[in-house]
Parts: sequence; C-alpha cells; structure tokens
Amino acid sequence: MTQAHELAHTGLLVGARLITLAGNEGYGIVEDAALGWRQGRLDFVGALQDVPDAWRSERDVVDAQGRWITPGLIDCHTHAVFAGDRASEFEQRLQGASYEEIARAGGGIVSSVRATRAASEDALFDASLPRARALLRDGVTSLEIKSGYGLDFANERKMLRVARRIGEVLGITVRTTFLGAHALPPEFAGRADDYVEAVCEWLPRLQEEGLVDAVDAFCERIGFTVAQTRKVFEAARALGLPVKLHADQLSDGGGGALVAEFGGLSADHVEHTSEAGVRAMAAAGTVAVLLPGAFHVLRETTLPPLDAFRAHGVPMAVATDCNPGTSPLQSLRLAMSLACTHFRLTPQEALRGATVHAARALGLADRGRLQVGQRADFVLWNMAHPAELAYWLGGELVEAVYAEGRRVA
Amino acid sequence: MTQAHELAHTGLLVGARLITLAGNEGYGIVEDAALGWRQGRLDFVGALQDVPDAWRSERDVVDAQGRWITPGLIDCHTHAVFAGDRASEFEQRLQGASYEEIARAGGGIVSSVRATRAASEDALFDASLPRARALLRDGVTSLEIKSGYGLDFANERKMLRVARRIGEVLGITVRTTFLGAHALPPEFAGRADDYVEAVCEWLPRLQEEGLVDAVDAFCERIGFTVAQTRKVFEAARALGLPVKLHADQLSDGGGGALVAEFGGLSADHVEHTSEAGVRAMAAAGTVAVLLPGAFHVLRETTLPPLDAFRAHGVPMAVATDCNPGTSPLQSLRLAMSLACTHFRLTPQEALRGATVHAARALGLADRGRLQVGQRADFVLWNMAHPAELAYWLGGELVEAVYAEGRRVA
Ligand SMILES: [Zn+2]
Ligand SMILES: [Zn+2]
Repeated sequence: MTQAHELAHTGLLVGARLITLAGNEGYGIVEDAALGWRQGRLDFVGALQDVPDAWRSERDVVDAQGRWITPGLIDCHTHAVFAGDRASEFEQRLQGASYEEIARAGGGIVSSVRATRAASEDALFDASLPRARALLRDGVTSLEIKSGYGLDFANERKMLRVARRIGEVLGITVRTTFLGAHALPPEFAGRADDYVEAVCEWLPRLQEEGLVDAVDAFCERIGFTVAQTRKVFEAARALGLPVKLHADQLSDGGGGALVAEFGGLSADHVEHTSEAGVRAMAAAGTVAVLLPGAFHVLRETTLPPLDAFRAHGVPMAVATDCNPGTSPLQSLRLAMSLACTHFRLTPQEALRGATVHAARALGLADRGRLQVGQRADFVLWNMAHPAELAYWLGGELVEAVYAEGRRVA
Repeated sequence: MTQAHELAHTGLLVGARLITLAGNEGYGIVEDAALGWRQGRLDFVGALQDVPDAWRSERDVVDAQGRWITPGLIDCHTHAVFAGDRASEFEQRLQGASYEEIARAGGGIVSSVRATRAASEDALFDASLPRARALLRDGVTSLEIKSGYGLDFANERKMLRVARRIGEVLGITVRTTFLGAHALPPEFAGRADDYVEAVCEWLPRLQEEGLVDAVDAFCERIGFTVAQTRKVFEAARALGLPVKLHADQLSDGGGGALVAEFGGLSADHVEHTSEAGVRAMAAAGTVAVLLPGAFHVLRETTLPPLDAFRAHGVPMAVATDCNPGTSPLQSLRLAMSLACTHFRLTPQEALRGATVHAARALGLADRGRLQVGQRADFVLWNMAHPAELAYWLGGELVEAVYAEGRRVA
C-alpha cells in the first residue's frame, strides 16, 4: 500500500471487491474487480480480467488484497465549524440543570455563537479541522459545512472561509452552506424580521466571494417562521443558489412542503413532516436527510415518516449533523448505525443514504457511486461483509481513503 | 512528543492537567501538574513546582502541552475474541427476518461458535486483534476478554490463549475470564447439567495453564439456571478463582444476589436486578457493570436500578460488552456516551465507571486512579473539558496512551 501515497490522478486498483451501488437497489457488488481512474475520474469499473493489459505498466497499481471498496462517504449535513465548549453544558444537564438554567447561565447556541465570534479565523480553523479529519479518516470524502454560529456578516464569512480552507487542507470536497437564519443573534432580539433582512443582504456579498454553495434556514417554532424562511429562499433563488431546510424537527411546521416549493435540494430532520409534505418533496425531487444523531441525543420518540418516504420514492440521505449542541457526532458510519437502530433502516439504505442520496442532497451528480465518469472518490475497508459499515459502533475499519484518485487518508 | 516512543519504565510528564479521580467523587483535577513514574509505577502525582529539580535531567521528559490526562481506561467486560461474521444477520433482521428464521438458518450465537471453532489459533488472533487495538487507540489500557464461543475444552483454551497473546502484543493488560457456561453447545443439546459438569472439569486444567483470571456464567431463562450457575461458581471457589455473572439482563433471575453470595467481583447487565439483589451486592462489595451497548442495540426500555445502586453505594462500572451479537461496540468512550444518554449517568459517573469501578470489577487494586503507587497507565487527551470524554460520539480524542509508563498508542 505504500506506493499509494505517491499516486497522482491516474491509477489502477486491483484485487478489489466493489460495492458500486449501481442501479436503484442492492449493493451492486462486483467481485474480482478493478477500478481505474484518469485525471481524478473513474474510467474503468468492472472485472479485473477486462482491464486492458497495457494499464498494468502504464499506471500506478494498488493491490486492494481482496478488500471491499465503496464510493467515498458523503456527509451532507454538518455544523462542524465552531469554537467553544458545550461538553460542560452536557454535563450540567445530566447533573440536573434545566434548559432554562443553562440558558440563563449563557449556555445553549448563544454560547457557541459567542465563542465562534471571539475566535480568530486561524483559531476557528484549528478547532474545527480535527472534526473534519475524523470524518475523513472514517471514510468521508465529501462534506457539507454550514455557517450559522457567526450571525453577523464578518463572522458568517469567517466560518465559510474556514470551511473552504478545511477542504483545501484535507484534499476533500467541502460544500459550504450559508445558514445565517440559524438563530436570532442577541443584538437583534425582538427584531427577527430585521435580522432576516440583514441575512438576505449578506448573501450576495458572500456569494460574490465564492463562499456559498447553498442556503439553509432553521424553520421551527423556536427558529424562523415560514414567512421569514420564504424571504431567505427568495433571496437565494434570485441569486440562483439552491436551498435546503432544517424542517419539521420538533413539530410539523410545513417545512418539507416549503422547501419543495422552492425545488430545494433537501429537507433535513423531517421527523414531523406530514403526508402532504412528503408528497410535495416527492414531486419536487427533494431529498429527506435523516439525522439520527440528534434524534438519539435528544431522546426523541417520533420517527420520520419512513414508510411514506419509501412509498412516494423520496430518497433518504443519512448525515451526522455534527454540532456541539444536539449531535456531537464525528463519524458518518456511526450515523448509519444509529439510523439502523433507531429508524430501522437496512444497512443498504443507510449506505445509499451516505453516498448516492447524500450526493443528490448536495446537488453533486458526479459522485456517490462507483461508475465510469464519476469522481475517483473511494474507500478501502477492512471488513468481511458490506453490512459491517452500519453494524459496528466505533472501531477502525478504514484501510485507505482516496479523493479524486489521490490517497487522502 | 516524538521522544515519548523511546520512553521506558521511568519518566516525567510535565505541562499536564490531571484528572486523578482521587477521592470518592469529582474529577480530582490538578492543574499545572506533573506525573512521574519509575519501573512502571507512578511515583509523583501533583503540582509541577513540587517536582524534584534533578528529575528533569535524570528522566525522559514528555511535555503534555497543557493536555488533559486521565488514568488509562479499563474495559471490564468484553467478548472481543471471536471469529465469523454476524453483520449479515444484523442485516437480515433489519430486512424483516425474525430471530427464529435467523436461528433456523444457522445464525445467532451458534454461528459465532461454529466460526470460532473452525478458526485456527492464528486466524482467531488475526480476527480479534484489530478490535482490541481499536479499544486501545481510544484509550483502553486494561481489558477483560471472555471465552464462551468455544464451548469445548480445546476451543475455550484457544480463545483464552488468544486473549493472553493480544495483551502481550499490544503491551496492555488483558484479564481472561472463563465463560464456558455461556451457551449450550449443540452436542450437549438437552443435557445442560452434563455440560455444566464438563465446564467444571475443564476449569482446573485451564487454570493450571495460567489462562483463567476469573469465572463467569450466563444466568438467564435462555442461559443457565441458578442451580447450574451455582455449580460453576463452586468449582471456581474451590480453585480460589473470583466469579462474576451475566445477571438479570432480560428478567430478574436473582443473579445479582447469587453472585453476591459468592462474594463475586461483579454482576453485569443488571437491568432487572431487584432491590434485594442490590442490597446483597452492596453488602458483598460486588460491582454493577452497566452495558449500555447491548441495551442500545436490543432497544431495551427497562433501566438498571441506578438510584438503588447509588443509594446503597454499589459502584457502577461501564463496559463495552464488545460482542458480535448484541453489542458490536469497539469504543469504551462510546459506551460512556451511551451510558449518559440511555441511563442518564453523569460524565463523571461514566468516567469513574470506566476507570475506578472497572478496576474493582476486575479485582485490580493497582489502577484506575492517578495516585502514587498505581500503575503508570494514562492517556493524553485532545479536549478542552473532562466531560468531552462522554460527550462526543466518535472522533479522535487520544493524543497518546501509556501502559506501565511505556507509550503503547
Ligand atoms: Zn443541523
Ligand atoms: Zn457479555
């Protein structure tokens, strides 16, 4: 495996057992297989015996030694960039403090906002990089990171710049999402409409700097109203930016239907989405992003309408929601496991949720499967059966991770 | 940190923030601290300014650079040695197969027994080592491993030999537990009493080879009866071996009281232990070992009698129960997190459960705290607050792990 480190954009992986995820169901297994790539894109996926003979001398060859290979995992919903410490708050809650007491003591999301604002760009980068690296070392090659702890122009911009830098340093894809409408900052207390106006004004300036791939909002009784969310979405649409939404997590606020109305990429959480919302999402092609980490930590009991999603053909993605308050989760495999245990997803559904459907939730058509033309993002796993990806809680399964044909972990 | 690799049994760690766990509660924090050791034992734990000046030149010095240090974590209940694949069974269950269907297809524990018997000693070692290594890399320096998938003399012996070898190769402590009375092997179908007799006959032979540190049994309606368990315990007592028990997991079978009657080290699972059982455990000094991984995977709803354990002063340990059927859990930190989320333990209780009380559950008086005279088993953590140990789900928090003063990860 040592030569793998030197591999550039062109290579050939032999001795592989591929989990291609080709087609609409099943693992899409190819045994005795090879994977070829050129300039970071797959140009061969199939039986080893069909590889052109000349390639063995023309390309760097990596022997997978019979290991299973999947597409690189895709974490389509994270808040991995933040500063500060919420573990002490976690401890206070378990010692009996109420949410109100913690909020009065300066805890909750405002504590992350305060710490994130106070951190320099470098300090924020240093605090956040290990989380993204942990995700990568567990198999993630594409990662969404949201802003939303800055809540003013300069600090939202700082977060998005840090997110971009993480992608560059790790050699993986980071998709940035502007989540200015995450919470109301203290200086706008009682003036939510004014804040939304400010958010809409920051958006084009951030986009101009190339910092925004998509726009998100927190539409909930304790967040922003449907009318306010609509304002944000209209600003995004005017700029040609795709939208997604924190929707129907704690109550049915019509979020699924709202984001579908805007042809959004995804509605996320969706525990309380109604049948009408599911139908609207199906019609719009909006992905349902399941976030079992927050469900687990908050000890929720209302499951997302999984059977309705299946019945209406709404693709279900699975993501970590990595964040300091409700989902301190740094492993997408673990999110897959939680999705199986809490939501009874099958391991295949969980894997498609963390690859094929997660790619779609990010609007990325060039990844999520092992197919010719897709990016050469893939992972070599130490396991005996594909279901092990969702079965183990913890452990070290990754042998190697490649992004655009280069070894990144 | 590079020089750390060369450290032998004597050294000095400076720039540390110690979580000593001294006393009966709290983290026992010492800031601006140092840790000294000689011949694998701590000979200094305290303020850096109190370190004898000469030590700085006489000893290898490691700079912790302000990192938090805990005692090495102790996983006091695992079945980490096994062969075979149960992930496919996990998948079948989620695809709708009933336990009966899986059993009829050769699944369940018999599948692990079959695979473990079929594996050579080397193959069993190769299959099991990565699990123990994952635990170590996440901070574990002492680890219990049970037999119980061999279920005949030669294969129980093989498992225990593999467990010993894992400890030697990793440079950490492995405590072996003979769990012959785990399940009834097919060749003894309908003859449980005969099997228990065989188990009692194997025990002295295994002990003679130095393979047995303690004796365990699975006392449950679907396991062995109280009378059969008693036979096994009497055989252990005759040899001076301590006992422990898989007790009251699925129903109140009086297991807590039974193991207490034998002055046992621990009663494990204990979800259904009665008040009388708790009192008996308190009187005997028997530890309650909480196994939240199995609780999580089986989606149990009956909590262990935590308040009764607290009220009666029964120490509560936390362990992974790492096993292929009900707890495929390879991280003791994750077990701590599950204990907080499912059982509402505080992070301090979870940490004491994975150190101080776990040591007691293994009968090891020389570890679990950072105190002079204890083994120099400790971990350097990348975190800002001690509660992070139980807060994160996944992630890479370990900077370095030392066992007997030598760096092992
Ligand atoms: Zn979120
Ligand atoms: Zn067990």
